[in-house]
Amino acid sequence: LIRFALFGCGRIGRVHADSIDVHPRAELAWVYDPIESAALEIAKQYGAAAAPTADAAIDDPSVDAVVIASATPTHVDLLTRAVRAGKAVLCEKPIDLDLARVDRCWTEIAALNPTVMVGFNRRFDPSFHEVHDRIAAGDIGRLEQLIIVSRDPAPAPREYLATSGGLFRDMTIHDFDLARFFVGEVVEVYATGANVVADYIADLGDIDSAIVVMRGADGALCQITNSRRSVFGYDQRLEAFGSEGMLSVGNQHQTSVRLSNATQTEAAPEYLSFFLDRYTPAYRAELDHLITAIEQGSQPSPGFADGREALALADAALKSLRTSQTVRLRSAVS
Amino acid sequence: LIRFALFGCGRIGRVHADSIDVHPRAELAWVYDPIESAALEIAKQYGAAAAPTADAAIDDPSVDAVVIASATPTHVDLLTRAVRAGKAVLCEKPIDLDLARVDRCWTEIAALNPTVMVGFNRRFDPSFHEVHDRIAAGDIGRLEQLIIVSRDPAPAPREYLATSGGLFRDMTIHDFDLARFFVGEVVEVYATGANVVADYIADLGDIDSAIVVMRGADGALCQITNSRRSVFGYDQRLEAFGSEGMLSVGNQHQTSVRLSNATQTEAAPEYLSFFLDRYTPAYRAELDHLITAIEQGSQPSPGFADGREALALADAALKSLRTSQTVRLRSAVS
Amino acid sequence: LIRFALFGCGRIGRVHADSIDVHPRAELAWVYDPIESAALEIAKQYGAAAAPTADAAIDDPSVDAVVIASATPTHVDLLTRAVRAGKAVLCEKPIDLDLARVDRCWTEIAALNPTVMVGFNRRFDPSFHEVHDRIAAGDIGRLEQLIIVSRDPAPAPREYLATSGGLFRDMTIHDFDLARFFVGEVVEVYATGANVVADYIADLGDIDSAIVVMRGADGALCQITNSRRSVFGYDQRLEAFGSEGMLSVGNQHQTSVRLSNATQTEAAPEYLSFFLDRYTPAYRAELDHLITAIEQGSQPSPGFADGREALALADAALKSLRTSQTVRLRSAVS
Amino acid sequence: LIRFALFGCGRIGRVHADSIDVHPRAELAWVYDPIESAALEIAKQYGAAAAPTADAAIDDPSVDAVVIASATPTHVDLLTRAVRAGKAVLCEKPIDLDLARVDRCWTEIAALNPTVMVGFNRRFDPSFHEVHDRIAAGDIGRLEQLIIVSRDPAPAPREYLATSGGLFRDMTIHDFDLARFFVGEVVEVYATGANVVADYIADLGDIDSAIVVMRGADGALCQITNSRRSVFGYDQRLEAFGSEGMLSVGNQHQTSVRLSNATQTEAAPEYLSFFLDRYTPAYRAELDHLITAIEQGSQPSPGFADGREALALADAALKSLRTSQTVRLRSAVS
Repeated sequence: LIRFALFGCGRIGRVHADSIDVHPRAELAWVYDPIESAALEIAKQYGAAAAPTADAAIDDPSVDAVVIASATPTHVDLLTRAVRAGKAVLCEKPIDLDLARVDRCWTEIAALNPTVMVGFNRRFDPSFHEVHDRIAAGDIGRLEQLIIVSRDPAPAPREYLATSGGLFRDMTIHDFDLARFFVGEVVEVYATGANVVADYIADLGDIDSAIVVMRGADGALCQITNSRRSVFGYDQRLEAFGSEGMLSVGNQHQTSVRLSNATQTEAAPEYLSFFLDRYTPAYRAELDHLITAIEQGSQPSPGFADGREALALADAALKSLRTSQTVRLRSAVS
Repeated sequence: LIRFALFGCGRIGRVHADSIDVHPRAELAWVYDPIESAALEIAKQYGAAAAPTADAAIDDPSVDAVVIASATPTHVDLLTRAVRAGKAVLCEKPIDLDLARVDRCWTEIAALNPTVMVGFNRRFDPSFHEVHDRIAAGDIGRLEQLIIVSRDPAPAPREYLATSGGLFRDMTIHDFDLARFFVGEVVEVYATGANVVADYIADLGDIDSAIVVMRGADGALCQITNSRRSVFGYDQRLEAFGSEGMLSVGNQHQTSVRLSNATQTEAAPEYLSFFLDRYTPAYRAELDHLITAIEQGSQPSPGFADGREALALADAALKSLRTSQTVRLRSAVS
Repeated sequence: LIRFALFGCGRIGRVHADSIDVHPRAELAWVYDPIESAALEIAKQYGAAAAPTADAAIDDPSVDAVVIASATPTHVDLLTRAVRAGKAVLCEKPIDLDLARVDRCWTEIAALNPTVMVGFNRRFDPSFHEVHDRIAAGDIGRLEQLIIVSRDPAPAPREYLATSGGLFRDMTIHDFDLARFFVGEVVEVYATGANVVADYIADLGDIDSAIVVMRGADGALCQITNSRRSVFGYDQRLEAFGSEGMLSVGNQHQTSVRLSNATQTEAAPEYLSFFLDRYTPAYRAELDHLITAIEQGSQPSPGFADGREALALADAALKSLRTSQTVRLRSAVS
Repeated sequence: LIRFALFGCGRIGRVHADSIDVHPRAELAWVYDPIESAALEIAKQYGAAAAPTADAAIDDPSVDAVVIASATPTHVDLLTRAVRAGKAVLCEKPIDLDLARVDRCWTEIAALNPTVMVGFNRRFDPSFHEVHDRIAAGDIGRLEQLIIVSRDPAPAPREYLATSGGLFRDMTIHDFDLARFFVGEVVEVYATGANVVADYIADLGDIDSAIVVMRGADGALCQITNSRRSVFGYDQRLEAFGSEGMLSVGNQHQTSVRLSNATQTEAAPEYLSFFLDRYTPAYRAELDHLITAIEQGSQPSPGFADGREALALADAALKSLRTSQTVRLRSAVS
């Protein structure tokens, strides 16, 4: 059994606790949260112990891996300490909002050859994953155009958004990684945005809608559409267009019921409403991937570098938004 | 150019006039209707002449073919006269409501080796036709089960239904022919029905809903569901289930628009509303088939015998409805 | 916690063990199977004890409920003993293959006011359940026609089928219950069948394909299509047609991926392949329903009488198949 | 009857000849093409006269309207002469490849208050039109994001592309107009492109794939994806996302047949293959709109200014492609 310590007992922490709980080869040993009651509640529910301090869990030699689902500013410190303690790490996105801090973190831990996975769960969504595998199998020839639509059902509250790092680092970062999953390295980014959803988002200096255009190193064009609000539910779709065909992923429904009546036909019920519904299988497959990597001594993917690159794309998008120009990446990289 | 005379200038007569008009190798020469104003109106619209009598059109040696779209009781007489005059005939269904009369008609004309086509337009619907061709091409292996759903948007008025011959001879007859198109000869018929749509239908001694089960000579089972009323529009679907797959035909929409909002997702607009919309291409392909048969001297299909057999199935269904027993056909046929 | 004993550790027994395991208010105490190794394996996997005899489990006063997932001939005996021991019972379908034996069983236990649920899991499928609820809410007006398509991916082996009771009692019985879920009491049954799938089924005197037509007491017509083999996977669909609309349930896919290429468009991947995939949520909801009924002291549904009625419909269908006549039910019932 | 003269007897000229032919209130009087045989063939097919010169048709006082479907460089001259002769004009897109020449043309004819319609047929596609009307009716609240996918089945030959004006002026121009149909005036354009389809397109200095991002004056973001090649057929889709819902337009199939077999499920046949199939109803509705405008003395839409603006967007996109910057429009317009 792989023994886990979980940092952060909020909404996303619960998702990971549940994934660990149902995995046949995993065990939740410790949970930690600065809000003790939150830690105690999860500890009780899953039969784990609430750690008095983060170090109490990190220093437990019986712990194999830690999941970092705490507030973003704590990620780098916890990740660094866990790596130094020899633990495998699953770190929620983003690693940090500051790319320089992320790079310093890597400088500190690189020599330890750490096992670090970043929580870009969309890669493990069964539909997206199938598209990835079928492209690799040649189903659509060469990938030429990738269209990602990603819209949340409703904007997070002001308090959350105020420290979120903005749309690109908080929400689009999933789509940046998903794009990289399909097109590989990105060499150009263009972004534009709008404020149409909620005034408080504009007040924060953030946008609530965006379109991003990217070019991959192999020439594929990629396009992302975001909105903080979709009244018909969580809108998570993708089209991969290639020289020999197209694979598309549609939204998923609660049931397969359709209604036809005097005013409409074949109307479906609501979509799976948010990430806890749509991406539950993805979170579980993500954890399974890490556990298998730990067991086999291999590197999990997406890794630290992928977390770094998605953040770099978010920064590039923000620069493009501000300058109205295409931002080129990697010119100095060989 | 194939020159046509059209008998009957009602709703279905107009459909045929229009098909003749747009066909590049056909010409509407004469139209006849006992209601002179109806004939004059169509004659004027399509540049044809209104015949003072049916014979005036039948006896015109320049006429190649007649379309019989008049009231059902007139079919046999017109058909017989047209065949004797050497014309090719497209006769709307049913040939007659009385099977014995149909058989006597055939006795009279058989020796003339007539070119007679019966207006079972569904065989020419592009979707049904594609299913037929793909079954023949082996796409689903051996056909084992055929499910036909056929529902009208709203019941015809009492006056029409009173002389219609009842649900099986008036409406299901299309489905009987469609079933024969796919499964060939039918050896068993079972039928049941209900009155749930309109009281005046029950008052007429007719049913407004039915389920029919049939068995083809090759062992395929076939099932038909009918209703005289479907609030969501003309419901015309088919599933052909075979040993290696299934081909299905869904309803067709006015447009490809779909709406998702806070209460539903992917709702389509109404279906093509009735036979004039759904089967316009079928009526045109039907006429083209006849014209090509005339030009090539071949026999069109479905022919007189198909019209006879569909009526025999309607009679068998009625017998089954009354006896609650399976009716076996062809026992005396060798 | 509701403590369960499980009888039968085969494929379906595992499904129930898993449902009990993941239910937050249930606990698997005992498992029993005449094949001791099967019992030991499940006991180990779920932390239960393997009972040396069925009675050892039934007589344990700490056990609240038993799940009977053993061979059909053992159902009545186990059910009777469990009821006498005061346990709630979830009995897999059918209660027995012999209607007289079922009725004798009820005579023996009726006075005990037993809590017995029969495992007609389809009632708990989220899609079917939604249709049921929406009909009750008036979404389609009065239900007039119900079409059920139910096809297994591949026939069970000869050994299984030889003691299965035949297509109607083994497979259609689920559809009989599903029909009753929607149309209530059934007053007429007609059935026909065919042998097109596998010779060994015919050798057993059984059919492998069937069409059943029924009439509900309130006048709704119902139609069931069955096959023992569907190459495109488990085919489980339903259409409820009413005076004001239609609700339909389609098959469900592994993913929402669609492929368009030079030879086809919008092709979906395979359907959820068999009942373990399609009906996992149904099995869990079924168990939850029983647990809630036990906790609240209410009667679970479908109950013993529903298990009896579905079997009676299977017998009626068999009689109809043999006589080619409609079989009327309940004429002597008041 | 509105009498038409048609200039240009190539592929698109035939489409218009056909639309005129089937319109009940239109008549094709003259056709002209520098290739006399092409003119004679269409003249014969539709019962029109082949004009010896363009002027012979323009100067015929019985002609009400001209359709300009000739080579792009001839458009401005023919349009100007037709307007001076008092004719209504339907001019195929683009008016010209040179925006300055378009503006000079307008300077010359503006005082004549001409009736000029530009052939942006997509506005008349029943599905796109329905979306437009339903947005106006409030079905999705305020329009926030518009996604247009527009891909041709296969690239035109080198000879055509060499004088086409490039992807934006030749192909995307339809999408620019469609975007304006929905979002109104466009204030920002960004474009990027790629060469992945055919080397000869790159050799011509043109791109074969593109992504365009635009912002409307009211804040809506718009995104266009183009490719010169789609192996699964003509790909013409649109999504209009708003504050209260989304309306989408999918591709349209030849038939409603779907195939499920051992390797896939619900596979549809090919899409309507190219503009002659997909947009036939649009071309007819476009012509009907012009005829109605002539009859009523109203201005048809899209008009000359719309043709001018779509070209201006194409030029802006080209500028953005070359500079990697957002191009702002209308800054000098008041």
